[in-house]
Formats: sequence, structure tokens, C-alpha cells
Amino acid sequence: MDNPFFMNNGPFKLRDILKDLSLINDQINQDQIIIDIKDLQNSKSNEITFFHSKKYKTVANITKASCCITTENLKNELPKECIPIIVENVLVSTSLITAKFYPNSINDDFDNTVNDINKTEFNNNVKYGKNVLIGQNVSIGSNCLIGHNTIIEKNVSIGDNCIIGSNTIIRNCLIKNHVRILDNCVIGKHGFGFFPTQNKNLRYPHMGIVIIEEDCEIGCGSTIDRGSMSNTIIGRNTYLDNQIHIAHNVRIGENSIIAGQVGIAGSSIIGKNVKIGGQAGISGHLKIGNNVEIAGGSGVIKDIPDNSKVMGYPAKNIRQFLKENR
Amino acid sequence: MDNPFFMNNGPFKLRDILKDLSLINDQINQDQIIIDIKDLQNSKSNEITFFHSKKYKTVANITKASCCITTENLKNELPKECIPIIVENVLVSTSLITAKFYPNSINDDFDNTVNDINKTEFNNNVKYGKNVLIGQNVSIGSNCLIGHNTIIEKNVSIGDNCIIGSNTIIRNCLIKNHVRILDNCVIGKHGFGFFPTQNKNLRYPHMGIVIIEEDCEIGCGSTIDRGSMSNTIIGRNTYLDNQIHIAHNVRIGENSIIAGQVGIAGSSIIGKNVKIGGQAGISGHLKIGNNVEIAGGSGVIKDIPDNSKVMGYPAKNIRQFLKENR
Amino acid sequence: MDNPFFMNNGPFKLRDILKDLSLINDQINQDQIIIDIKDLQNSKSNEITFFHSKKYKTVANITKASCCITTENLKNELPKECIPIIVENVLVSTSLITAKFYPNSINDDFDNTVNDINKTEFNNNVKYGKNVLIGQNVSIGSNCLIGHNTIIEKNVSIGDNCIIGSNTIIRNCLIKNHVRILDNCVIGKHGFGFFPTQNKNLRYPHMGIVIIEEDCEIGCGSTIDRGSMSNTIIGRNTYLDNQIHIAHNVRIGENSIIAGQVGIAGSSIIGKNVKIGGQAGISGHLKIGNNVEIAGGSGVIKDIPDNSKVMGYPAKNIRQFLKENR
Repeated sequence: MDNPFFMNNGPFKLRDILKDLSLINDQINQDQIIIDIKDLQNSKSNEITFFHSKKYKTVANITKASCCITTENLKNELPKECIPIIVENVLVSTSLITAKFYPNSINDDFDNTVNDINKTEFNNNVKYGKNVLIGQNVSIGSNCLIGHNTIIEKNVSIGDNCIIGSNTIIRNCLIKNHVRILDNCVIGKHGFGFFPTQNKNLRYPHMGIVIIEEDCEIGCGSTIDRGSMSNTIIGRNTYLDNQIHIAHNVRIGENSIIAGQVGIAGSSIIGKNVKIGGQAGISGHLKIGNNVEIAGGSGVIKDIPDNSKVMGYPAKNIRQFLKENR
Repeated sequence: MDNPFFMNNGPFKLRDILKDLSLINDQINQDQIIIDIKDLQNSKSNEITFFHSKKYKTVANITKASCCITTENLKNELPKECIPIIVENVLVSTSLITAKFYPNSINDDFDNTVNDINKTEFNNNVKYGKNVLIGQNVSIGSNCLIGHNTIIEKNVSIGDNCIIGSNTIIRNCLIKNHVRILDNCVIGKHGFGFFPTQNKNLRYPHMGIVIIEEDCEIGCGSTIDRGSMSNTIIGRNTYLDNQIHIAHNVRIGENSIIAGQVGIAGSSIIGKNVKIGGQAGISGHLKIGNNVEIAGGSGVIKDIPDNSKVMGYPAKNIRQFLKENR
Repeated sequence: MDNPFFMNNGPFKLRDILKDLSLINDQINQDQIIIDIKDLQNSKSNEITFFHSKKYKTVANITKASCCITTENLKNELPKECIPIIVENVLVSTSLITAKFYPNSINDDFDNTVNDINKTEFNNNVKYGKNVLIGQNVSIGSNCLIGHNTIIEKNVSIGDNCIIGSNTIIRNCLIKNHVRILDNCVIGKHGFGFFPTQNKNLRYPHMGIVIIEEDCEIGCGSTIDRGSMSNTIIGRNTYLDNQIHIAHNVRIGENSIIAGQVGIAGSSIIGKNVKIGGQAGISGHLKIGNNVEIAGGSGVIKDIPDNSKVMGYPAKNIRQFLKENR
């Protein structure tokens, strides 16, 4: 995962990790060093991973991780070399350990490191409005514009020839060249991810960022949340209209066109050259192919293959839908 | 109604009230003192109420109010002790008299009493961003954060350990402990309530407030309108995602989870432990039970009993919907 | 088109226009002066127009324009007096020439001409909040209010007794008397109009403005885009609730009521006395008659005649819909 912003607070000894989970296990080497936490597919030796559903059995079978947070029922799916760490709730425990490695990824308080842009290095090479605030660890390319009252919070990299509107808030975001972000947007805040409990929901960390590729446009009043374990990505030359909501971990391909008030739920992957009409909604964890057209107002609740045109709720082949609804 | 903010401008003599309605009635004691205006159920002796639809006959039969704005057709449903005040349009007249008792509840101009937080008592015990404004009659608990450009207008009480984002506007709102309100929200403005006329719509007063109970989270770009004759309430540990609209008088129970771009129309009551998927809409004046799950994109147009799972537009039993829409 | 804001950079000789389109045509008088660019219906002698689809054949037959950007296939539909200018892509070429006449209509950078209102002529006759910015070519009537952090960018005319909320951004907009625009709105930005290409989408000019007639109210978080070749118009005494999106070239009649989160796509014409329920969507280029009622959540994809009540997606007669969906 391309993530220049969230610092890894590790490594930790396995002993410390077990302690945080209130676990005791004398049969393993607790002095073992754990460098990072990653998903089943991407983790390597000396890293910890997690495995919470049979759905991921195939990937679990070949994970390279040194240890894995999992359950009694699932542990036998792991390779022999991978130490199972048995817990009651895998996701809650994973959340705790992720927060241990990336403590800054859970905190979304307003950025109190910001300064008036007049007092920063950018007062010369950026054209900016009134009352612009800039946080720590921000870079801005040449020939950029930043509108009034806009807040570039910490951990933002902006390319060349970018135009940011007014009243917009950005953090934890990689913005490539020639991108336009219009007014009143909020980009890079944590997603709507937490473990519900009756007493007090437990937020999980969002260590992913938002990446907006070259030549994109993001309309007024849009929100793009950063990812939890992966990044939220808007592909090159993709245009978003006003009041769009893109949830955490969503990836949209290049040359796509998304009309007003569309919402895309968490972790869905949208292909390239996709057209989505106004107010359409796409459920979470779906895969929408390339060159797909989704009619305005549709509700997509299953994967859509390449080159399809769909409409309706639930969205189906557009010809079929129109025939049934004459 | 728990309402610490809107001051009652009364009491008034009944004579003054009749005069404002351009009515003459010599057969009653016009010197009678009227203390307050309330709905049929909650009004007591020396208070005025209103009765505009047969639907409320049962409550009207036993109202304790001393007088009641109503019509010739409905007046016989009132108890003998309750003086009927006969008008052409009950709601318009009620609106006029409510405005007489609560003149500040109709005015939603920007709050020109605000001061830069640096010049207020809060500059010591609140951690705040740049350009934060604070109105009159505001209290803030310990250990709170308020982001950049945020405006806490008059009549706001914030508990302990609350986090308010940037570019957010709040007024007429009771915020309990451990609440998080993210960026670009508008909370506590009057609802979309008025009497349509061909010349110039007539706004009615909104004397209710917004109450956000402990441990709630309100996502970016959300709007929560205050109530007209009752309060708008978000229950404890309920989480709202981005770009949600909650209309006036809505009440949501505790431990509910509401995904992005959901809209809930005026006066609907949502139970506890309710889950609402993204972009779902709920019509006004409905009752949604406890433990209900509403699929994303659904349109709910009738009451939903406890423990139901619904989907579709109009929303129906989710199994039935999916069977019919394979 | 009533448009006091975008200055015509012409006239140009026909030679210059051909040159910009990389065309050579020695058979016509290239010294001819072209004053303006308009659509087929409104253009007159010494003006240029465009004709890209057989759908507009009838209007093309009688256009008064001196020349017309079109294709080999369509040119014979034009009157003899109208010189056809043959191009590969009519809309792209029209976009280029429109930008030539109205260069300022394509640029939507933040307005860097704004000043703090304290330093303008308005500091006496307007009641305003903190940090209000006012651009060039702005007029404000008597007895107006402008909330905190609001930016009135260039080219805005505000009538008497208007109330503008906080955190709102307005440009290229004619606001008549007694209009209320609430918080966090963005009004008058260019629409979502461009020619998609695989390399880099080409924005087309938006030389229309937004006109908000007397007594309107625009809810919090709403966006109203200005028109491309015509104006976006909100009719007298029409009320919009929160989080509504009105796209470019839309016209809404008087006395209409539009509930929260509604979206109206580009160029649709809505009649007067129309009621639209929450979250309803209306596709582009439609005609919705007078006195129409559209139920909340509906998706309208074809014209609706006067006095109809519709519901569903696609929206149909409300009785039929409810009968089919018991």
C-alpha cells in the first residue's frame, strides 16, 4: 500500500502484542520481533496479520506472516510456520494491534499544527485566497491555486497545476498534477468504520490515504474518506460531480464520469470508463467492470461485468429493466 | 419538551391573542391569562392548544388546555371547559400565536452576537482552531476540541470530551458528553416547515431544539434541523455517516447506525439498534421499530414493526423483495 | 438570455474563427464580422450558431445566423443564407468558439479580487458577520444580512431584504428581493459539462448565470450550478430544502416546493406549483408540467404532463404504482 503518511510505531516484541490482547502463551517465542501489521495477502515474515472469515481461506493457506490473529475454528487453515493468536473477536483485536502500530491513524481531531499560509514557505509559489491554513508535512507543486478558507491539514501532497476551491478541507491525501477540487469538500477523513457495541462503538484505525490521480475533478460538497487497511483511489481523468460520497477503500478507474449525489459504499472497486448517473448508489465490497454504464437512480447490489449497461433497484440489464417497466 | 433555549415571551391575556387573530368574542372572559402554547396532549390549565384534524380526536377529547385554536367542525370534540377559538386555518393561526409566545424561534438570521473564541471565557479550557466563533448562551464542558472556522452560535450546550470538526455551524443544540461532530455540518437550523401560499410562503416557528445524546458521531456535511413543536433527538451511541439529512422533530433511538446520504423526513420516530443502509429514505410521520434493518437505497413509506428487515421502494420484507427481484 | 455578467470579447472576423478551428475556406467572405455566438433559435444576422443533431432540424431550417458550425451530413438543413462551417465534432468546436467570445465563462478559479467587506462600500448598509468577502461587480440592496465566512464572489447582484447564511459561496448570480439562502451553499459555479476524452476531458464554457427570483429559500448545503448556453432559474416563492443539487440550465417555476436531497439533472424544466418529495431525482432534458406532484424517492426519466401525481422508479401514475406495490 502506497502510504507515505502514517508512521509505523513498531517494531514490537510478540510479548507486548499478546499483553495488549490480554493473552498468555508460553509455548511460543515471545521475544520474536514483529515489524508491521498487514492483510493476509501482503504480510511477510516478521509481520502479523489477521484471518476472520472462511471466505479468505485460500489466501490464509499461503500467508507469509509470522503470526496471525484468528479463532480456534479457523487456525488450522494457516501454514504451519504461522503462529495462530486465538482471540474472541478477530476484528476488534486487529483493530487494537493496528492502533498500536499506527496510533496516528485513529485520531481525526482537527489539525492544530496548521499555520496561516502567509507564514509558510508557500506564500511565494502558490496563488491563494484569504484565511488559508496549511498543516505539517504538506507539499505543493508549481502553479497551484487554493481558495478562501480552505484548510490543507497535515499529510497532503499536491502536484503541479492543481486548483483547490474555497471552504474545502483536505488531509492524508496524495493529489497528482492537474487535479481540480471544488468548494466545500472534505477529503481524507477516516471512513465510517467501527465495531458496534451496545455501550460505545469502537472505531478502527484508518491507515490508508486518499490518492487522486492526474486530471481529476471533484465537485462541490463531495466527501472522500480515506481507507482503513488500503487506500481510497480516484483514477486519472475521472470526474465527480457535486455532493458525491466516496467511502473508505473504494477504488475508481480512469476516465470515469460520476454524476451528482452518487454514493459508493466501502471497498467497492469501479473499473475504467465507467459512467454513473445521478443519485445512483453502489453497495460495499462490489466489483464494477470496465466500460459499465449505470443509470441515474440505480441501486447496485451485486458485481457488474465489463461493458454492461444496468438500471433499476436492484440494478439489472437496462433493456430488461425498461421492458419490464414500460 | 426539554427546551432550555427559547424564552417564553408570555403570559398574555386572551384578549391580546384574539386580537392578533382578528377575532371578537364577548361571550368569554377575555381577561383570562394564557401562560403558554402546547400541543393537545401536553397543554394544561391556563395554556392554549390547537386541534386541526379528526385524527387527533381522542387526544382532543381530554385535553387540559383552557382554550384551543380549532374549526367550527371540530370544536364539539373539545371538553366543555376548553374554550374553542374558531379560525379559518388552524395551523396558520397556531403559527401566529406560537410566534407571539416564542418570537425568537422564527428568526434564523446568522448570529451576530458571536465573538472570536479568543475573547471569550473558553480560551483556556477548550482546545480550538483558527477563526472559531462563539455566540451568547453557550456552555462547553471540559476537554473539548473545536476545529477551524467553526461557528457555535447562540443557545448551545456542549458536554465533556466532545470533538467538533471544522467549518461546522451549530445553534439551539444540546450536545451531551463524548459526542463527535465532523466537518461542514449544519445543526440546529429551523426545519423545512411553512404554510405554502401563492404569494409568499409563511414560515412557522421552530421552538424545538436538537439534542444529541452521549457517544454519538455525526458525519461530514450532515444537516440536522431543530424541531417545530418538539425536539429533534439523536439517541445515545448512534452513528451517522456523511451527508445525512435529519429533518425537524425526528427522533432516533440509541445504538443505531445510519450510512451515508440517508434522509429522514420530518417527525419520524426511529427505534433503537436500527441499521439504515446508504441513500435510504424514510418518509415523514412514520414509526420505525427497534432492531429494524433497512437496506441501502430503500424508500420507506409506512411504519415498520420491531425486528424487521426491509428493502426496496416501497420497502417491504427483504426476503420477499429479493425473491421478487432475482 | 438575461446575462449581465459575462463580457463578450468579440466581435471577430470570420477568418479568425476559422483559424481557431484550423479550417480553410476561400469560397466565403472571411472578412465578415461575427458579433456573437448563440443557439439556433436565438441567433441573428452576423452571429454564429451550431447544429449537431437532427433533433433540431426544424429550428435549423429557419435559423437567422450568418454561419453555423455543423457537419457534412447536416449542412443541407440550414437556410441558403447561412454559411455552414464543417467540423468533425460540432460540440467541441462550438466550445472552442464560445470560449473565444466569452473567455471568462470557462474559468472557475477562486475569485482573487475579493476584499474583506469592512473595506468595501457595503460596510454601512449591510448587516454582516465575521470574515465576509466581497468580489468585484457586486451589488447589494437595502436591509440585507450576510453570515459569517460567506464569500460573495464577483458578478453577483443581491436585491433588498435578502438573507444569506454562513459559509456560503455565491458567484455569477442574480438574486431578487426577499430571498433567503442558508448555510454552506455553493451557487453559481459551472455545471458538470465537458466533452469526455481518454486523455483529458475538455470543459465547455458556462456563460449562463443563476437567477433566483423573489421570495425563494435555498436550504443548507445545496448546490445550484450556473447554465452553459442558458440560465439556471429558480422561480418566485419556490422553496428548496437542505442538500439539494440543481444542475446547469435547469428552470424551476414559481411556488414550487422541493424537499431534502432532491437532484435535478441538467436542462430539465420544472413547472410552477410543483411538489417534489425528498431524495427524488429528475433526469436531464425533461419537461415537468405545472401542479405536478412527485413522491419522495421517485426517479423521473420522462416528461410529466400538468397536474399529474407520480411515484416510483421509473416514476409513473401514483395510484398505479401503489396498486402494483401493495
